[in-house]
Amino acid sequence: MTELKPETRDKLLQVSVATLATALFKRGFRNQTIQDVRPLKAKGRNMVGPAYTLRYIPAREDRNAIDVFRDPEHPQRKGVEECPPGAVMVIDSRKDPRAASAGDILVTRLQLRGVAGIVSDGGFRDAMKIAELDIPAYHNRPSSPTNLTRHEALDLNVPIGCGDVPVFPGDIVVGDDDSVIVIPAHLADEVAAEAHEMTAYEDFVSERVKAGETIIGLYPATKQENLEKFAAWRKERGR
Amino acid sequence: MTELKPETRDKLLQVSVATLATALFKRGFRNQTIQDVRPLKAKGRNMVGPAYTLRYIPAREDRNAIDVFRDPEHPQRKGVEECPPGAVMVIDSRKDPRAASAGDILVTRLQLRGVAGIVSDGGFRDAMKIAELDIPAYHNRPSSPTNLTRHEALDLNVPIGCGDVPVFPGDIVVGDDDSVIVIPAHLADEVAAEAHEMTAYEDFVSERVKAGETIIGLYPATKQENLEKFAAWRKERGR
Amino acid sequence: MTELKPETRDKLLQVSVATLATALFKRGFRNQTIQDVRPLKAKGRNMVGPAYTLRYIPAREDRNAIDVFRDPEHPQRKGVEECPPGAVMVIDSRKDPRAASAGDILVTRLQLRGVAGIVSDGGFRDAMKIAELDIPAYHNRPSSPTNLTRHEALDLNVPIGCGDVPVFPGDIVVGDDDSVIVIPAHLADEVAAEAHEMTAYEDFVSERVKAGETIIGLYPATKQENLEKFAAWRKERGR
Amino acid sequence: MTELKPETRDKLLQVSVATLATALFKRGFRNQTIQDVRPLKAKGRNMVGPAYTLRYIPAREDRNAIDVFRDPEHPQRKGVEECPPGAVMVIDSRKDPRAASAGDILVTRLQLRGVAGIVSDGGFRDAMKIAELDIPAYHNRPSSPTNLTRHEALDLNVPIGCGDVPVFPGDIVVGDDDSVIVIPAHLADEVAAEAHEMTAYEDFVSERVKAGETIIGLYPATKQENLEKFAAWRKERGR
Amino acid sequence: MTELKPETRDKLLQVSVATLATALFKRGFRNQTIQDVRPLKAKGRNMVGPAYTLRYIPAREDRNAIDVFRDPEHPQRKGVEECPPGAVMVIDSRKDPRAASAGDILVTRLQLRGVAGIVSDGGFRDAMKIAELDIPAYHNRPSSPTNLTRHEALDLNVPIGCGDVPVFPGDIVVGDDDSVIVIPAHLADEVAAEAHEMTAYEDFVSERVKAGETIIGLYPATKQENLEKFAAWRKERGR
Amino acid sequence: MTELKPETRDKLLQVSVATLATALFKRGFRNQTIQDVRPLKAKGRNMVGPAYTLRYIPAREDRNAIDVFRDPEHPQRKGVEECPPGAVMVIDSRKDPRAASAGDILVTRLQLRGVAGIVSDGGFRDAMKIAELDIPAYHNRPSSPTNLTRHEALDLNVPIGCGDVPVFPGDIVVGDDDSVIVIPAHLADEVAAEAHEMTAYEDFVSERVKAGETIIGLYPATKQENLEKFAAWRKERGR
Repeated sequence: MTELKPETRDKLLQVSVATLATALFKRGFRNQTIQDVRPLKAKGRNMVGPAYTLRYIPAREDRNAIDVFRDPEHPQRKGVEECPPGAVMVIDSRKDPRAASAGDILVTRLQLRGVAGIVSDGGFRDAMKIAELDIPAYHNRPSSPTNLTRHEALDLNVPIGCGDVPVFPGDIVVGDDDSVIVIPAHLADEVAAEAHEMTAYEDFVSERVKAGETIIGLYPATKQENLEKFAAWRKERGR
Repeated sequence: MTELKPETRDKLLQVSVATLATALFKRGFRNQTIQDVRPLKAKGRNMVGPAYTLRYIPAREDRNAIDVFRDPEHPQRKGVEECPPGAVMVIDSRKDPRAASAGDILVTRLQLRGVAGIVSDGGFRDAMKIAELDIPAYHNRPSSPTNLTRHEALDLNVPIGCGDVPVFPGDIVVGDDDSVIVIPAHLADEVAAEAHEMTAYEDFVSERVKAGETIIGLYPATKQENLEKFAAWRKERGR
Repeated sequence: MTELKPETRDKLLQVSVATLATALFKRGFRNQTIQDVRPLKAKGRNMVGPAYTLRYIPAREDRNAIDVFRDPEHPQRKGVEECPPGAVMVIDSRKDPRAASAGDILVTRLQLRGVAGIVSDGGFRDAMKIAELDIPAYHNRPSSPTNLTRHEALDLNVPIGCGDVPVFPGDIVVGDDDSVIVIPAHLADEVAAEAHEMTAYEDFVSERVKAGETIIGLYPATKQENLEKFAAWRKERGR
Repeated sequence: MTELKPETRDKLLQVSVATLATALFKRGFRNQTIQDVRPLKAKGRNMVGPAYTLRYIPAREDRNAIDVFRDPEHPQRKGVEECPPGAVMVIDSRKDPRAASAGDILVTRLQLRGVAGIVSDGGFRDAMKIAELDIPAYHNRPSSPTNLTRHEALDLNVPIGCGDVPVFPGDIVVGDDDSVIVIPAHLADEVAAEAHEMTAYEDFVSERVKAGETIIGLYPATKQENLEKFAAWRKERGR
Repeated sequence: MTELKPETRDKLLQVSVATLATALFKRGFRNQTIQDVRPLKAKGRNMVGPAYTLRYIPAREDRNAIDVFRDPEHPQRKGVEECPPGAVMVIDSRKDPRAASAGDILVTRLQLRGVAGIVSDGGFRDAMKIAELDIPAYHNRPSSPTNLTRHEALDLNVPIGCGDVPVFPGDIVVGDDDSVIVIPAHLADEVAAEAHEMTAYEDFVSERVKAGETIIGLYPATKQENLEKFAAWRKERGR
Repeated sequence: MTELKPETRDKLLQVSVATLATALFKRGFRNQTIQDVRPLKAKGRNMVGPAYTLRYIPAREDRNAIDVFRDPEHPQRKGVEECPPGAVMVIDSRKDPRAASAGDILVTRLQLRGVAGIVSDGGFRDAMKIAELDIPAYHNRPSSPTNLTRHEALDLNVPIGCGDVPVFPGDIVVGDDDSVIVIPAHLADEVAAEAHEMTAYEDFVSERVKAGETIIGLYPATKQENLEKFAAWRKERGR
């Protein structure tokens, strides 16, 4: 599991997915935001943690009867017990929300175990209950049928696709109230740092725009004068 | 119309669609949850009732001018007056939300007539107003164009498809804040009973998981000790 | 830019998109409601204004590096400064929400400049922040990646498609909490007037249905008696 | 069953679906061409006949075991024996080609019984064999799973949707090597006649364009001189 | 690798995917036909062999530059050299044909190595050239961009999904001119045997239907007399 | 209009779209192959020419009656007469094949005028006739309804999107029997040259692979020995 530095984590808690997406775009990454996934409930705070993955394949009827859950090694159940505290469980449901990726009891267990969040490009059952838990969860849409109907849990912690995005175990996953992004592990520190800086400037710009200023020359800062004002603004606020 | 036994109805009011989906899955039914349909507003209570259906086909321009509504036998209007109190109106809109399945005046009339709810795999117009009514309504997304734009109301109370699910008049329809499921009429009593039992166990498991217990051996109950604790728990709570 | 008469604007502020869609349907227009677009937040009031358009085409990598925003003539930035107060900015994002159409800083600037609203058939980044601004915004879903990832801003104020609807600069755009409709400029006055009348009758019908009356003969008014009651109702309320 | 006049049938054998679509468009019909359906094999001749319909709904597992075909009243099998010679069987498969609408044995039987053709907005199994039969067949794509997997045959000869088009029993169905169109029964004679006339002009235009002429003034005929040349051309060819 | 018995292989060479799908349906398997995949060219003979799989995940730009193919361990290239003669290479392209799964040089190499066929739920580049090779190939549609554009080859011979079907290494893959089916390894012998028997009856039925007989009582054989005629027919033909 | 050098054109006539896609990928272009478009008929030779574009927007009923074609300035008709000989007409149909982009008479006129080909991300009517013309044509699928049903021709020779690809007038368009690619104008010479070189190597590799050689070390050429053999091979063949 990647060591996520506390200062990187702190920075990632304070920046938006949009800003991170731009920081990654500047480095040539165009495809790190998980598509068509949303929070079950806006939490007003970021989800941050290294990815721990679960891979589903389509279910075959003879391998997915209800009693498979009696096996303590069933990958879905095992994953729920083994996903490290602080990590984000990311599920490859092949963008198929017609059966559940997981339900409220498993997500409650993850919360109790200190897991940082859960993401699926399919859907969760008991979604209304999961929404009320104190753990961020993201999916495509509520899905009541048991996962056995369409999904067979196959692998834990292998590279997967989720919402058209490559996810490698240990990549840093960040979610806000809009969406979820996957930062390649080796870039987490520098991207967090850059996004932190960008956020300071965006906050400064927001203030100015709310005060009635034009964006031309300000966003981006093509006028020298705006850079100077920003320097003063930062000093004033200690940012 | 199916006679829905009061005790079956009571049980169905207290279980989730997810639990019902599992009870049906155990009996070989993999396709009873209406796909891609959601409540206009979470009601915090279940919708339960036998299905009364309305079938739309694509509209032909010469048969669907605005004055067709003047005909008291127009199937959409007739259905709104004839859907039995306690029933759920289920509409086959061919999964096409580009024109409305119904609007707030018709849904208000259904509410006043004691209808239990309304479901379409298309969309409702005046959705924000319908959301505030005291009748559960489920659709794909808000849709403002009049139904005449794309839908011709053709049949009342024939078997239909809704959200890829077969719906026969008299099947028991249950909706919660996540989704809607269709229970074949002849299975309503036994599925309600089983889901009721399953819910007791799930509530017990939820409590234990919230208290920090592992799901292995507990969910499902492969450890004898957990079955004993559950027996005690039920006795204590009179469930 | 079309002159939007104050009385037309007033009427359009008080009618629903559904009613406007029916008024247009009666005139042979079946395709003026923008499909699959929703408000970022229900505002409880209508958005009304003439269309000012922005056209995106797919982005080519060598033309859409991050520094293109330094150009004060970049169409997206220029459009934000030139969209007339009172107008609605409508964006042709080719129904592709995989990259953002705009973000909160630009939308804040539009608000400050007195723009009446913004609509895209793609998605906005910083959607949660835009939702809290005092300007109506409509899109398909939140989208965090910068527009450069997939969209190149090309043209301002040319005819476009948005959500499968033709939009000509100066067409009157109306949004409510359900959806958005585009009224051809030359029909704005008469459609507003008719929708205003229709709304009076719908309000009367709503009252009667809530009082327990059948819709047959009332909606539409095929019974003479209902037309008389409506006349009395209007007089009483001064409508 | 509609009486299809021999002279109408003759005309419909000689015009293209494109020309018929334009003739219907002029009468206000914008939605009569079945979408996303193609011939299994180009036949080089038109399919023409009144519609005889079969309606599928989604299959429920307990009602669609393999032995249902033993019932001589099973609607799919019954329809194959009862579809009138000269008619076109049109199947509402809800645009779902994931299981078959029919296979080569049934289609062979239709051919032997003198049926004019078969159309489904799903897919046929044994498609390669059906392609070689002497009966035109149109579908979305080959589909090998038995219909029982997803479709329950429910109704015969009721109004249906097929490829987003309304189809009423007795409507006149015409297919060429590109696509299939549905002519409302009461318009068959006049639309056939007009399409026949249009085809003469199109053939004339084709000849002239192949001879190097501009389309301006010719297609459509806005120059008087072209109408005169056309009159001469018709006389010469006896058309 | 599963041992595929020569007599099982022989039988599978002579039956259609449709018949195999029915034999699997009778055993409770509803989802073994790969969806939306077609032969690049009809070969008039079946593809049969055990599955050897390749798994793609979405490509990350920094891991998929053009020089990755210089690595002799690159999974796509390695798979092409290691796929056993007689096996079918099945590729999980996540149903994304926007970049190639493979091209003609690799498929030529597979042919030369004695591989029985190749299937992808994405698309092949150089499709017209592959179509002319003497190895059956199935995909969704031609796709010219290099796989690096969207796909990273990750794993060889692990369980995958392909066209919504679960594929385990060693499952028996059969393709005809319509589609491709995956037979669970442990069922290959019995399913082949049953399909072989079913095919004899279907051939008998075909002959009778072509001779003008009704399908009622014949298909399926509910009339005793037809079973007797079939027995005679088999004896006569030695089948 | 871009000057397309004769030697560049010659090279582009001899390379595949797949090879061009790789040459562009190496330069950072991932999105130049038009998606989901195919030749109406394989021509066995490439289509090459600079792009001349036509932009459609969704049709509004009052602006798209049948008589609009009487206007000699109607953009579709005007474009057909003004598209330069040697150019490729590329149509932005917003990926909507539900109504035609053009029909056989217009395409015949283009052929007669010496136009090099036509591409639409929608569909052509009279597709079977166009397939037989001596001009390459590419679309999504046959579409019989007149363009007026859904498309309004708006602009000529402006930048457009086609099949998710940006197309600027003068970009070089190349189509083979698989697909169509758009080369940015300023790169045409260098990309043609590189693709020409790559093709020589691919032809050499093909020969070797057909002779039984492994691809490892050969494709790409990581073994020095293969580069030497290739040098000899070129000399021998004068390539």
